[in-house]
Parts: sequence; C-alpha cells; structure tokens
Amino acid sequence: MLKVDVSILYEFMTAIFVKAGVKEEEAAIIADSLVQADQRGVHSHGIVCATRYVGLIRSGYMRPVMEYSVEKDHGAVEVWNGKRSNGQILGYHAMKKAIEKAKEYGIGVVGVRSANHFGAGAYYAQLAEREGMIGIALSTGDPTMAPWGGAEKAIGNNPIAIAVPAKEENALLLDMAQSVVANGRIANMMKQGIQEIPEGWALDKEGMPTTRMEDFYSVMPTGAYKGFGTSLMIDVLSGLLFGGGTGFNARDDADGASMLMMAWNVEMFRDQDAFTEAVDNRIRELKAVRKARNVEAILMPGEKEAQQYAASARFVEILPEIMEEVNDLAVSMGLERI
Amino acid sequence: MLKVDVSILYEFMTAIFVKAGVKEEEAAIIADSLVQADQRGVHSHGIVCATRYVGLIRSGYMRPVMEYSVEKDHGAVEVWNGKRSNGQILGYHAMKKAIEKAKEYGIGVVGVRSANHFGAGAYYAQLAEREGMIGIALSTGDPTMAPWGGAEKAIGNNPIAIAVPAKEENALLLDMAQSVVANGRIANMMKQGIQEIPEGWALDKEGMPTTRMEDFYSVMPTGAYKGFGTSLMIDVLSGLLFGGGTGFNARDDADGASMLMMAWNVEMFRDQDAFTEAVDNRIRELKAVRKARNVEAILMPGEKEAQQYAASARFVEILPEIMEEVNDLAVSMGLERI
Repeated sequence: MLKVDVSILYEFMTAIFVKAGVKEEEAAIIADSLVQADQRGVHSHGIVCATRYVGLIRSGYMRPVMEYSVEKDHGAVEVWNGKRSNGQILGYHAMKKAIEKAKEYGIGVVGVRSANHFGAGAYYAQLAEREGMIGIALSTGDPTMAPWGGAEKAIGNNPIAIAVPAKEENALLLDMAQSVVANGRIANMMKQGIQEIPEGWALDKEGMPTTRMEDFYSVMPTGAYKGFGTSLMIDVLSGLLFGGGTGFNARDDADGASMLMMAWNVEMFRDQDAFTEAVDNRIRELKAVRKARNVEAILMPGEKEAQQYAASARFVEILPEIMEEVNDLAVSMGLERI
Repeated sequence: MLKVDVSILYEFMTAIFVKAGVKEEEAAIIADSLVQADQRGVHSHGIVCATRYVGLIRSGYMRPVMEYSVEKDHGAVEVWNGKRSNGQILGYHAMKKAIEKAKEYGIGVVGVRSANHFGAGAYYAQLAEREGMIGIALSTGDPTMAPWGGAEKAIGNNPIAIAVPAKEENALLLDMAQSVVANGRIANMMKQGIQEIPEGWALDKEGMPTTRMEDFYSVMPTGAYKGFGTSLMIDVLSGLLFGGGTGFNARDDADGASMLMMAWNVEMFRDQDAFTEAVDNRIRELKAVRKARNVEAILMPGEKEAQQYAASARFVEILPEIMEEVNDLAVSMGLERI
C-alpha cells in the first residue's frame, strides 16, 4: 500500500474532475466522497472510481454540470429526474432535500432516477446523521448478481447505507451491498493479480460456487436467497417506484443507477438527547457481552471504518495499482502525476 | 403433518382468544394472522404462538382489550404507546394509520412501543399492499442472537417484512428474520425431537458454530456481521427511535417488542399502473434468466409461500406436536379439542 497525503490527493481528485468539466464546488464533493471512502478503508468505492466517472463524462453518459428536474413533489416525497448528472452531486443535493422535508414532515424521501453510480452510500447517510437525523441511502446498480437459482447476472448488489447519531459513542454506520462482498473488491483483487477468491464469495457462469478468479462471473448474494430478496426490494424502492433503472437498465450505458435518499427527523419521534443516549447505551450493552473464543472486541457497524478513518486523517493507504491508474488518467488529461 | 380444516381452525383460534378475554373482532384478527402464517407454511409464526400469547394474557403481560395512546403526531409520523396490548391488534391498527398518513404525505410511519410479539410481519405489510401501496413492517424482539463476535444473546433476530403490489404477477413479499433461520423454526424441530441442526444455523454457548441440538444456544445472523448490523438498525428504527424495547427490554416479561409500520403511497411517486406493470416486467425478466445447474425455477420473494397458501385454502398442514399443544391449551380454558 502507498501512503498518500490526504490534502494532496483531495486536490488532485478535484483537479481531475474540474479538468473533465465539473464545476469546482461540485468537483470538491466528488473528491470528498471518493477520498473519504479510501480513508475509511473502502477502496472499492474510493479514487478507483475516478477512471469510470471521467470515462462516462467523456463518452457523454455523465453530465459534467448538474441538471435535474423535479417530477413529483408532494408532502414528504420528491422525485427527481437526474438527467444523468454525476451520482455524488445528485446524492448530496437529494439528501439535503430529504433532510429539509424531514424537518417539516418527520420523514423525507427523495428518489432520483436517471442518475449515476453514487460511490459509497455512507457519504449521504452521514449528511443526515451530522444533522442529528437518521439517514438512509439506497441505490440500484448494474447487474453483478444472478437472481437466486439463476446463472445469469440480472440484478445489482444494490447497496443500503444507514447512519444513526450517537451521543459520545461513534455514530452507527452500516453500509453494505446485498452481495457477500462488493464487486469492486474482487475487481481490485484482480488488478493485484490475485488468483484465488475466498470461498462463498463468487459464482461461475453455471451459477455454481467458485474460488478461481479465472472462473469468476458473479458475486454471491449475502445470506443466499435473502440477499437476492433484499436486493430486489431495493430495486423496487430506489428504482421501479419512480421509474428508475434496475438490472440492465441501471447500467452506465443505459439509464444509469437510480437512488433513494431518506432522512428521519429524530426530534419528531422522541427527545433528541434521550435518543442519542439510548443509542450510546445500546452500543455499550452490546460491546460488553462475553466474547466468543479468539475474539478480541465486538465491533459495531462502521466502527472498523471509523478507526481506519481516524488513522488516515493525514495519510491514506492506496493500492499502487489504483494510484497508477489514476495517475495515468491525470496524465491523459494534461495534469501532472502525484 | 395433520391436515386441518381452515375454517374450523380459524374459529377455534378465535374462540381461544375470546375465552382469554379478547373482543371477538380483535380475536378474529389474531386468528387471521396466525392461521395465515400456517397456510403460508411459516409454522414458526402460526398457531404455535397461541400458547405464548394466552400465557402472556394470563400472567398480566398482555392486555386482552386493546388500549393505546398517541404520544407524537406530526406530519407523516405517529408514535404510540401500545400499553402492552396484543401485537397483532396494534400492528393491524398501526399499519392502517400509516396507510392513512401515506395518503396525505406520500409516506406514513407509525412506531408502537410497549407492544408485544406481532407474529409474521408479512400480515401487516400485506395490508398496505392490498391498497396498492408498498408496506414495510419491522419489529424488535427478545434476544435470540449474540452480537457478531459475542457469546451471549443480546439482540433479537428482528424481522423485516416488505410487500410490493404487482399487476398480474403475485405481489412480492419478503418476510425475513436477521438470522439464518427463525428461532421458532429450531424450537419446532426441538418439539419434534430432532437432534441435529443443519450447519450454519446455530451457535453454542461459546459463540462457536454447532449442529447439535443439545448445544444449541443462539441463532446465527444471516450474512454473519451483516445480519448483526441490519438487526441493530432495526433495533434503532423500530425501537430506540421512539423509546421502544430492544434486546432484554424487548422481552415478553419486560417492555415487550416494539414495532414500526410504514406505508409508501405509490401514486405520489408514479402512475400506479405504470408501477405495477414495471414490477410485473421485472419479475418476468428475473424469472426468465438461465438457471443454475439442478435448479427448476427461479423464485421471487414470497412465491413459495403464495403457492403454499393457495394449496392450503381449505386444509392447512399443522405439526401434530403443535396441534396437541394448542388442543391442550383449549382444554385448559374449558373449550373442546378439535
């Protein structure tokens, strides 16, 4: 792993997107989302995404300057046509709008169709969490999984991210794909030349489990048919419900990913302090139980990533193969390597 | 398996709850929820629950006649104190209220604390689905799982049920616990004297995997740490958010389970017909993919249960051990066996 200066990397990513035609303040949001993912150790959704996004701008599938239209607006609900703007920018603004709605109605929901890959859902869920709300971010994705029992990729491993504010403890932050591991994680292993995939992660073209990288075809849903079921429900809630792309329609070269942002205004359910204290107490209660053999600590969702983030405040670990790829991209745009 | 006449069983269950002090129309809802679960083949949440519920009424933990108070009501959100009324009755009325809210605000959320076990979440999600909405039902539960890495039960395998209306196809209906299998399923196996548990279902008192019934201690979360994470998020959304019981506090003899009902009014997101057609198309697309070796059909969430329900329209299969238990209960209340 390379150790890269965070502020240099952040400026580098911003420069790349500005060069691609994105407005400076919007490029800063994209850079923020990607660098933060690497800082949290989620390298499948870090700066590795830059090549994909710039490629989409170059080929006309991603609009560099955000445009969207409000197609529905009623009560707690809004639906946007994202007009294939960048997923990070849309996600950022959609969650901000959901937070606004939640202030008025207790809960706010914004669906954005014809969007793009939004990177790590944690980024948006945390926007609500930082305002003392519970944030939920969902997205459809291009097919990386077969429906349970199938041998053809037809559904995304659609992510869900949920962030919950605590008082003194770390916020709870669950960010998970509906597959055992993210597709991007296997892609990163492939980049490193790794030949073997751990058992239970992948299926081959016949829909049978495999551990050979050369036979890798699709990622396995988490909890078998349950992961397929939850992924299909995310297809519904963050896609079909408002005309967003799912499966093949969610591909970068089709209608793009579709997302749903949701904010829950804690204050309308309960006194804010009483809630965050209850979250603290629940965390402490769970962390204090007797451990299983050979286990050192019981971790809450997002705790490992929060530790990684804290440890990466100034320097962040990046795979050499990914840094090389992003440097090549920069050079191709007339920028200098870092 | 015994084959029991559905209408006789339904009247029998109603009579049991009326005898326990429940109003006739409310007893009918409880009977409906339990018999339907057996008809869908979900015997862990069927009439087997009657003994538990009647026991709770007898010991004073469950209020036979529903009472509740509205603690919060703002916009799309309502919070109730369920005053330890029956979980089925509270769930039924809470979902009806969520549907009403969704008509006005696009989405409706009702949290009910100090409730009781609500049986199968599918029952409530379907109430919304039958009105053309998407229904989501969540509940906390008494501890049946250890937090990931722990060796002590401290969290429920908190269920989530989601029902989605289709046009010509069966509605999608996902109803899943956050454990690999429901705790009640292993309890039913124990009743039958089964000694061995399939691999990957259970942990022993040291937090290690076991297949021996005599060593069974806790159910394994689905997808390992992911199932623990989703269960904790359900603790938050259907418990801590409005002061409801989680973990030990969710036990029958403590504050009882806490639930959240949510309705999504499709019409505020998209034309209703366009939506149900899109759901039909997505189902057909997924069912049509090439199958994995030895797989006969690709099933949607709830499809197997819908087939079982259709096959059980007149006669429903009940485990002899469970029928015996419920008959004994009836006799203890001065009713005749069926």
